[in-house]
Amino acid sequence: MNAVNFELKHICKQTGARYGILHTPHGDIETPIFMPVGTQASVKGLSPEELKSMQATIILSNTYHLWMRPGEEIIREAGGLHQFMNWDRPILTDSGGFQVFSLAGVRKITEEGVHFHSHIDGSKHFLTPEKAIQIQEALGSDIMMQLDECIPYPADRDYTKNSLERTTRWLERCLNEQHYPEKQSIFGIIQGGMFADLREQSAKEIIAFDTPGIAIGGLSVGESRELMLEMLDVLRPLLPENKPHYLMGVGTPDYLFEGVLRGIDMFDCVWPTRLGRNGAAVTSIGQVTVRNAKYARDFTPLDPNCDCYTCQNYSKAYIRHLIKADEMFGLRLTSYHNLYFLISLMHKIREAIQNDCLGDFYQDFKKMFDSDRR
Amino acid sequence: MNAVNFELKHICKQTGARYGILHTPHGDIETPIFMPVGTQASVKGLSPEELKSMQATIILSNTYHLWMRPGEEIIREAGGLHQFMNWDRPILTDSGGFQVFSLAGVRKITEEGVHFHSHIDGSKHFLTPEKAIQIQEALGSDIMMQLDECIPYPADRDYTKNSLERTTRWLERCLNEQHYPEKQSIFGIIQGGMFADLREQSAKEIIAFDTPGIAIGGLSVGESRELMLEMLDVLRPLLPENKPHYLMGVGTPDYLFEGVLRGIDMFDCVWPTRLGRNGAAVTSIGQVTVRNAKYARDFTPLDPNCDCYTCQNYSKAYIRHLIKADEMFGLRLTSYHNLYFLISLMHKIREAIQNDCLGDFYQDFKKMFDSDRR
Repeated sequence: MNAVNFELKHICKQTGARYGILHTPHGDIETPIFMPVGTQASVKGLSPEELKSMQATIILSNTYHLWMRPGEEIIREAGGLHQFMNWDRPILTDSGGFQVFSLAGVRKITEEGVHFHSHIDGSKHFLTPEKAIQIQEALGSDIMMQLDECIPYPADRDYTKNSLERTTRWLERCLNEQHYPEKQSIFGIIQGGMFADLREQSAKEIIAFDTPGIAIGGLSVGESRELMLEMLDVLRPLLPENKPHYLMGVGTPDYLFEGVLRGIDMFDCVWPTRLGRNGAAVTSIGQVTVRNAKYARDFTPLDPNCDCYTCQNYSKAYIRHLIKADEMFGLRLTSYHNLYFLISLMHKIREAIQNDCLGDFYQDFKKMFDSDRR
Repeated sequence: MNAVNFELKHICKQTGARYGILHTPHGDIETPIFMPVGTQASVKGLSPEELKSMQATIILSNTYHLWMRPGEEIIREAGGLHQFMNWDRPILTDSGGFQVFSLAGVRKITEEGVHFHSHIDGSKHFLTPEKAIQIQEALGSDIMMQLDECIPYPADRDYTKNSLERTTRWLERCLNEQHYPEKQSIFGIIQGGMFADLREQSAKEIIAFDTPGIAIGGLSVGESRELMLEMLDVLRPLLPENKPHYLMGVGTPDYLFEGVLRGIDMFDCVWPTRLGRNGAAVTSIGQVTVRNAKYARDFTPLDPNCDCYTCQNYSKAYIRHLIKADEMFGLRLTSYHNLYFLISLMHKIREAIQNDCLGDFYQDFKKMFDSDRR
């Protein structure tokens, strides 16, 4: 019995988008779902209770960061990440690969693994597929990700092909290292860059391992919108119906819709919290850069159509003041709103799928979301 | 009818300490009370709901900061500070004087007022007693403080005498500028440095104006504990029984007890939130510098005797990790605990006064508080 099991409940007659339930050891998750990111065992500025108040059902945490600090052994001793951070709902951890490739210092990639330097103190480390699983087992997440090779964009065909084949071999090593498949599931990751045939090759290789979930990595890395959607279109018919499909690192409203329309069930992105910390909000009528001077005397909420804590109680003028004055509470308020917005949007998307009208809902959403730009 | 009225309810038979109720336009406050400081219209990192959950009944906000940013007119347009920051309980604002003297740039003090440069953009401003009241009326606080001259420590006798007499004249000007005494009360401030006879002179002059509350300024500015307590002892018999006595800028547990024992009813201090942001906590067994390495694997709460949100849900190891990793949530957790600790301490002090056993309670508290140092 796998730790994580997916139940497909409904397919939108208008669009083919999927509504389902993901069963995990820490509870059930309705999909499609957006996962807030708690990089260092905390969703920046927010409490677990606040995340629950916005109906967050699963969060993502970063293996690389927790490995470097405080170290996975401390979290194991604490009773695992759930206990450590006071979050009793599901957690997905990434493999650490993406951060090693994007954040850490000088490195060497070999078949065995990745040599790198910590971004904190420059110390040398070696990340292998086995190590990625060992750390994630110490963390005790419900969903672990395989170590994959995250290639730069653009990358040439040979490099991409070699890399995706290595990612396949690394999946096998991850699965061999796994000790408790009934407690923690591993998801394989499809790579293949921006080459349709390599995406197909990777999909077939990864799917063959029959992992309880299938992720798509290496998209939204700088390529055009058209190219990303083309890759998703290529993958769509190959993805198994009875597994959740997770598009990694995607979280803007537009891409959430486009992903769901192409059979994606799970998303994560730091965008909403990062946007919030930069003093901006995503709203039903587009993006609001609340730190701008034009909001100094605007006593209306961030989003006129939002019923979140921030929008019910605080004005743009107040939030702008807090952000200009470097008050932490300002970032709490914008981050709260932004996550609430995305989580609520996914809730509405699930409803639209169940009501077979996701296409209509997307059109209505776009009309309002773009209204501010006209 | 004054905005603010004090009702003395009980005097501790063991110590003479006072328990009372301060009636304000935004609700009643039991005294003695500790007021959290929300310098820039936010108690750093915490929401109004969190402050209420720890039974905070009144907060202090800083006129100087709000004048400089966002400007008092924006807050007036927002409907006042209560509305602007979503806090419907009482607010005390200081006069701006202390910050002008301690934080702002090059300045000139005249009988008319204080010339200074903003610490934000260097712009020139002029703070007069009238201006201090005008700004506080725009903010709409329940309790306004007169503009006083905050002298350096040490200061010589002549300087101190001239300064306290000017503070008296400035009180008169503040009272003359006041428009809505039934909505907002002004408290006078006793100065006089570390000279017993000058403290007496100032007390007599300030008390003569019959303001609804009497504050003591210019203490806890670097002088010895003995000297501060001596000044409080000098003032004690002069302070009117039927008015609240507010000792400005004091908030460590030891000084709270010593103040209450000398008839003080109100306190404020940035210490608990600043301590929290520095990664330390005040606990029933003394101060805990949770960022220290020795707590890396300490899975017990900050304070073994505390039932606050932080202590009920998080370990020292987790809080230490958050602080080392620069996660905002760590500062929220320590600040929450520290304010909870002081507010709860004041609650216990009020109970001990009502039960005529404050002296015993203080001895018990000290024994435990110092236990970690032995």
